[in-house]
Amino acid sequence: MDASASRIRGNEIKDSYARAGVDINGADAVKKHIALLARATHRPEVLAGPGLFGGMFELKGFDEPVLVSSIDGVGTKLKLAVSLDRFDTVGIDIVNHSVNDILTCGATPLFFLDYIAMGVLEPDKVTDIVKGLSSACKDAGCALIGGETAEMPGLYTGKDFDLAGCIIGAVEKSRIIDGQAIKPGDVVLGLPSSGLHTNGYSLARHILGENKESLEKYYDALGGSLGDVLMEPHRSYLHELQPLLRMVKGIAHITGGGFPGNIPRILPEGIAVRIDSGSWVVPPVFNLIREKGKLSLSEMYRVFNMGIGMVLIASPEQSNNISERVEEIRVIGEVVIIKGDDRVIME
Amino acid sequence: MDASASRIRGNEIKDSYARAGVDINGADAVKKHIALLARATHRPEVLAGPGLFGGMFELKGFDEPVLVSSIDGVGTKLKLAVSLDRFDTVGIDIVNHSVNDILTCGATPLFFLDYIAMGVLEPDKVTDIVKGLSSACKDAGCALIGGETAEMPGLYTGKDFDLAGCIIGAVEKSRIIDGQAIKPGDVVLGLPSSGLHTNGYSLARHILGENKESLEKYYDALGGSLGDVLMEPHRSYLHELQPLLRMVKGIAHITGGGFPGNIPRILPEGIAVRIDSGSWVVPPVFNLIREKGKLSLSEMYRVFNMGIGMVLIASPEQSNNISERVEEIRVIGEVVIIKGDDRVIME
Repeated sequence: MDASASRIRGNEIKDSYARAGVDINGADAVKKHIALLARATHRPEVLAGPGLFGGMFELKGFDEPVLVSSIDGVGTKLKLAVSLDRFDTVGIDIVNHSVNDILTCGATPLFFLDYIAMGVLEPDKVTDIVKGLSSACKDAGCALIGGETAEMPGLYTGKDFDLAGCIIGAVEKSRIIDGQAIKPGDVVLGLPSSGLHTNGYSLARHILGENKESLEKYYDALGGSLGDVLMEPHRSYLHELQPLLRMVKGIAHITGGGFPGNIPRILPEGIAVRIDSGSWVVPPVFNLIREKGKLSLSEMYRVFNMGIGMVLIASPEQSNNISERVEEIRVIGEVVIIKGDDRVIME
Repeated sequence: MDASASRIRGNEIKDSYARAGVDINGADAVKKHIALLARATHRPEVLAGPGLFGGMFELKGFDEPVLVSSIDGVGTKLKLAVSLDRFDTVGIDIVNHSVNDILTCGATPLFFLDYIAMGVLEPDKVTDIVKGLSSACKDAGCALIGGETAEMPGLYTGKDFDLAGCIIGAVEKSRIIDGQAIKPGDVVLGLPSSGLHTNGYSLARHILGENKESLEKYYDALGGSLGDVLMEPHRSYLHELQPLLRMVKGIAHITGGGFPGNIPRILPEGIAVRIDSGSWVVPPVFNLIREKGKLSLSEMYRVFNMGIGMVLIASPEQSNNISERVEEIRVIGEVVIIKGDDRVIME
């Protein structure tokens, strides 16, 4: 459905149960505000006008367009947002996560649709969430074309809510990046993450705590409060990587499952990578989690990005070109012939 | 993310907390089963193969393709599914709801992505949900191309879960149906609904009860148990309407907001419809809700579809052609010049 007029599900309870104290005017105001925030992201391909149910995007400028899509949620980072009463960044998290996901195939974002669910509609919270969605969409040149805000009394309790989103991008068929040209001797490059991104929060919450008091605690090692560090938005790699797409053979977004869960997905059969874990500095938050949780390094690498949010694989020559262009990209390993079972060898 | 290998979020807790008793093998088995169910829906345009993160769809056969998308959830019909421990139909609900939504613009479904969230992964439940998604997608010729199953301990309690989905379809730009040609004298046609579809459940639950005992109660008037009638899947109008798309000027899917919330969205300015509420038989479940809830007819029409799931508007001539082709379509009203504020006049 449309990002504007009709996006709020659950109105029946308002219409017939105004006596229950639900703020109908609040719902109307939030609808208008959301519509404006969504419209700010629109591009010329978005068709709008009377009679259109919304969500229409004219696909132009591709010879052999392949649509690349991804749906995902923010996970239990949302629980921290609730504890801290801070809702303006989770929208950035889900958009940037999604942008990075389809970027791994070489795709450019076209449009995005969000799903927000809560027990009782809280207009300010919804508006803050959509502000984050809108700003990240604008930054990615991606139209926030649709959304649904579901009010589900009895399913979500207290201040809990859920947030998911679906991105649709496109890539020329001849320019799909699929890792199949990767061969031994190629170079593994890493781009720094901005924090935990959107994975590992169930474990992090379990170890570090999730109530307001735990999150407001200042840690010298982190140079800030735990909450600030954990809530740092998932960064987007779109602008850094878009000019490099023709130079890389494979891209892996380091999400749930970490290095061993994500890098092998782009490796051809018989191929592994050797990662030099000393080639970058693991951010302090991961060491804090490791120490407090008494986790092994291998467990850490299977859950968290450990400071590397995106992995690129390129020939040695292109790897030099890439490193010259983007300062923060560093060589973190090399491609090798597989020996044994491990496709990601940490050294 | 891909509908197969990587779709399960929340694995960190399993990897590092196997002692918590989470069934890792169960998760692996469900992944494989889900992948098979998704693959059964694939069409030749779905690109798959080693190295592809999934979710790739080659767009072919359109001159000026306009992508039409919609995201939505099932609402609190899910609470009834939990009470009845019946999860194989809610997937049908969300797919058919979505198919109908984009059908209003004349769009054909291309692909679908689902989002399932629960506190602790229950493999059988997820498999049942995906069975429903898969069968409805197959029926609509729509590829189930991606999905995310989020395990979010602490956010969903007990057996509660959420289910949302995003559909992407396409229509030739010249064949978009937008209602703008509708004029006085045109005919309003209705197609029967299969029940409440996916709207009005918060109110229906409030009035009729939602525990197992209430739902298993047999009602003579319903000719079945309350639970069976309320769980009846949202029907799809795709196959009935696809051959008629060139004959209609406007289509409204009667979802949340009922007639007054949905029909006006496709009407040009200055235009209203007069509905003859005696032209079809309102199914008994709506009368039951009305009586038990002591609701007015106008409240009922603002919340429920009242037995009409899809409304078409066509010229008198085309209306005859349409009625001849599809027996269950009936004339339910006419298009008039607006007088006063009401754009939907119930008579």
